[in-house]
Order: sequence, then C-alpha cells, then structure tokens
Amino acid sequence: MEIEIQLTNAPISAQLPAPTTGGVGAGAWLEFRGVVRSEENGAVIAALEYEAYSPMAEMEMQRIIAELAGGQPSLFARVIHRIGIVPVGEPAIYVGIAARHRAEAFALLAGFMDRLKRDVPIWKCRALTTGEWKKP
Amino acid sequence: MEIEIQLTNAPISAQLPAPTTGGVGAGAWLEFRGVVRSEENGAVIAALEYEAYSPMAEMEMQRIIAELAGGQPSLFARVIHRIGIVPVGEPAIYVGIAARHRAEAFALLAGFMDRLKRDVPIWKCRALTTGEWKKP
Repeated sequence: MEIEIQLTNAPISAQLPAPTTGGVGAGAWLEFRGVVRSEENGAVIAALEYEAYSPMAEMEMQRIIAELAGGQPSLFARVIHRIGIVPVGEPAIYVGIAARHRAEAFALLAGFMDRLKRDVPIWKCRALTTGEWKKP
Repeated sequence: MEIEIQLTNAPISAQLPAPTTGGVGAGAWLEFRGVVRSEENGAVIAALEYEAYSPMAEMEMQRIIAELAGGQPSLFARVIHRIGIVPVGEPAIYVGIAARHRAEAFALLAGFMDRLKRDVPIWKCRALTTGEWKKP
C-alpha cells in the first residue's frame, strides 16, 4: 500500500490521481475535505489557526493509516493537513483513499478521522474573528 | 437542501463546487467514485455496460437522497451515474455530499450507496472482454 502524508502551510489543492489512470484494481475512490466553518463554539469566525508538532504528527498519521489498512486492505492513501491560518470555506484537511471495494475505503477513512482527533498532535490553537483577520 | 441527479453516457468529470466557494456552513465535503475494475466474477474484462430505466432511475435516486437527508441533514448532494459502456479504470458513479458535519456526510453517502444497488433500476447488463471492446 502506498501512503502519502503531508503537513502544509499552503492551501490544499492536491487530489488523488484521477481515477482514469486506473489499472491498479481500485474500484472505490473516496475523498474527504474537512472545511473551516464560519461558526466556532457559537461565535462567528473568519479563520482558524492550527498548530502541530510536525514530525511527530506526520509519523503518527502514517502509523494510523498503516495500522487501519492492515484490517481493511487499501491500495493508496493520501493525507494533507494544513497548519497555520486556514480561512473559513477552505479545507484544513484532505484525505483520499483508493481501495478495491467501497467498504474498505469507508472503513479506513472513518477510522482515520476518529483517530486523527484523538491521537495526532495537531490542534486548533486560535479562532480569528473578521476584525482580527481578513483575506489578503 | 440542493440535490442534483444526472444519468449520462459521457465520462464523469463533474465534481462538487470547489470547497473554496464556501459560505454555506459546509464543514464536510465527501466524494465517492465507483470505478470499473479489471476483474468481474473472476474474469478479466475491458469494460462494463450499464443500462437504466432512465426517468425512473433518476426519480428514485432523488427520492432516496431526500429521504435519507431527512435524518441526516445535508446541504448539497450530487449524483452522476454513467450508463452505456464504461471502460476499466473509469468511474461508473460519482456521489458528492456537502454537510455541516462529517458524520452526516458519511451516513448519507453510505446509506445512498446501499439503497442504490437495491432500489434503483440501473444494472450491469454486460461485461466486455478486451477482444470485444478496445478503447477508441
């Protein structure tokens, strides 16, 4: 299984290779983007700021995917987590999974997202209001 | 909730509007592509041919999404099902869901895929071998 993990300060634009590249026996391509919403704990916000212990966060994400994929054989997984300031409406995380069958892709993605929040040292350190931050 | 349903003979290239359009409070964007694999019932194939009772299939998909979204409030759903000959490596179905939270998007997508196979009049009518069909 191929695993790509990336932390980035830049907007997330990457995607899985187009399904038309085919040939690997992947019948299920599942992609998730977790996008910053305009409300955080009841307050209107303009952006969230994420921090991470970067090398440890990347290692931990790699480990979680590999562990979960042991039980749910998948072919390819890509995780991109943005850190720093992420404006409302932009993704803070992208996860793409290719698997032979749909159930494997769903189980891996859902399992990873649960573990991410619990085990990976990435956290929302600050919510910025429109007064504090405006899109450049 | 906005629902878009489409049956098409053309390759599926459509996607959800880019998450950067934002502003609707969608925190979760989930996309699934079901891709034709090179093996069908143990035989190597080059393509699958899908047929549908088109108007009924579209109506039924619309009804299923609306019904499931009642319990899992979502903001946007797009379903594109290709019919006719779909070559190996290309998607036969695309489903994109935008929801406020991740759990809603997962539940709607998984629920829809289960119901699709069971209730919608779209079926694989033929598997084509490389001898019977070659990419133009």
